[in-house]
Amino acid sequence: MQFSSQLLENAVNEFAKLPGIGKKTALRLVLHLLKQEEKDVEQFSEIVARMRNEIKFCQRCFNVADGDICSICANSMRKQETICVVENIRDVIAIESTQQYNGTYHVLGGIISPLDGVGPDQLNIESLIHRIQKETTEEIIFALNPNIQGDTTIYYIQKKLQHTTTRITTIARGIAFGGELEYADEMTLARSLQNRLPVENYVANK
Amino acid sequence: MQFSSQLLENAVNEFAKLPGIGKKTALRLVLHLLKQEEKDVEQFSEIVARMRNEIKFCQRCFNVADGDICSICANSMRKQETICVVENIRDVIAIESTQQYNGTYHVLGGIISPLDGVGPDQLNIESLIHRIQKETTEEIIFALNPNIQGDTTIYYIQKKLQHTTTRITTIARGIAFGGELEYADEMTLARSLQNRLPVENYVANK
Repeated sequence: MQFSSQLLENAVNEFAKLPGIGKKTALRLVLHLLKQEEKDVEQFSEIVARMRNEIKFCQRCFNVADGDICSICANSMRKQETICVVENIRDVIAIESTQQYNGTYHVLGGIISPLDGVGPDQLNIESLIHRIQKETTEEIIFALNPNIQGDTTIYYIQKKLQHTTTRITTIARGIAFGGELEYADEMTLARSLQNRLPVENYVANK
Repeated sequence: MQFSSQLLENAVNEFAKLPGIGKKTALRLVLHLLKQEEKDVEQFSEIVARMRNEIKFCQRCFNVADGDICSICANSMRKQETICVVENIRDVIAIESTQQYNGTYHVLGGIISPLDGVGPDQLNIESLIHRIQKETTEEIIFALNPNIQGDTTIYYIQKKLQHTTTRITTIARGIAFGGELEYADEMTLARSLQNRLPVENYVANK
C-alpha cells in the first residue's frame, strides 16, 4: 500500500500489529478515527495507555486488578473458600458472565504443554498449592479446556494436592446446550453417557 | 460481559467503538496489548493520538498530508496537469498501489447522494472547478465507483465544466481481470461490449 502521509502510514502499521488485523482493516480503523473528534481519539489513546501502565495482577489469584487485590478476592459476599482454577483472564470473564459462580478464582496463566515449552514452573501452580495450604479451602473446581494439555494440568495439580482433604472437582463435559447428538464426537458422547445425571437433578438445574 | 477491572473494561469499550469490532474482538485486542511491553503500548497510543492531531488535508487536492500540501501535489516529477477525481482517501491509496498513475488527485470527500442527504455543496466540487479555472489542466479522469451516485456526480461536475476544453474521461468499466463472463451482470457485460477495444490496444497494454 502506498500512503501519501507518514502519520497515516505509522498509525496503520501500529494497528496492523494487532492480532487478526490486516493492513486493509487497519486502514479502515485509522480512517474511522481520523473522522472522529480530536478529544475522542485522545481519550481512546489515553485509556489504552493507562490500561497497560496501571493494570495490576491480583497477588492472590493473578486475575487482572485495579489494585493489589482484585475485586473478586476483595468481595466478602463471595465464597472465599471455593477456588475455580482457570487458564487465563478470558476464562474468568466467561465464567463471570454466566452469573452462576460465587467463589474465587486462580488464574494459572497457561496450561502445561511440553510441546510449546510450557512446564509447571512457568505457571501459577506453586502459588495455588501455597494458597490451599495457607487458606481454608472447601472446594477446588478445575475449569480448564477439555483437551490433553488441560487434563495433564489437572492430573499434575491433583497429584500435588494428594495429602489435602479438600474436595476437587472439574466442570462437566457433555453435549453443549443446543448441540446435536449425531454431530458430537465419540469421546464427548461416551463421557456424557458415563457421567449421566438423574433426571431430577437435570430438572432442578433448569 | 463481566470484567473485574475497570481499566480493562474501559479499554475494551474504547476498542469496541471502532467499526466492525465487537466486544469479544475488543477483549482479544486489549489482552494482546496487555501482554506487550509498556513502551510498545505507549508508542501505539502516541502514534494514534499524533495521527489525529497532526494530520492535515492538502489545500489543493484534499488528500491527507503531513503539511499544507500533500506529497503527491508537492512532487514535481508527477504530471500536475492531470487530475484524477476520487471519492475518498481510500481510493487514492488504491490507485497509488497500482503504480500506474503519475498525475494528481482531487478528493471529493463523498459523492452526490440525495437519499443520504449529501448534496454538491458538502463535497469539494467548487474547489475542483476553481482549480481547473486557475491551473492549466490537460485531463480530468473520473475514478468513481460505478453506481448511480457515481454517475450522478460525474454528470453534475461535467455540466459545470461545459465551457472548458479540458479532456474529461472516466476509468473503464468492464469485466474484471480473472472474472467470468457468465457471472457478470448484464449492465457490465453490455457496457464492455459497447466499449470494446481493438485487440492491438489490448495486447499493447499487457
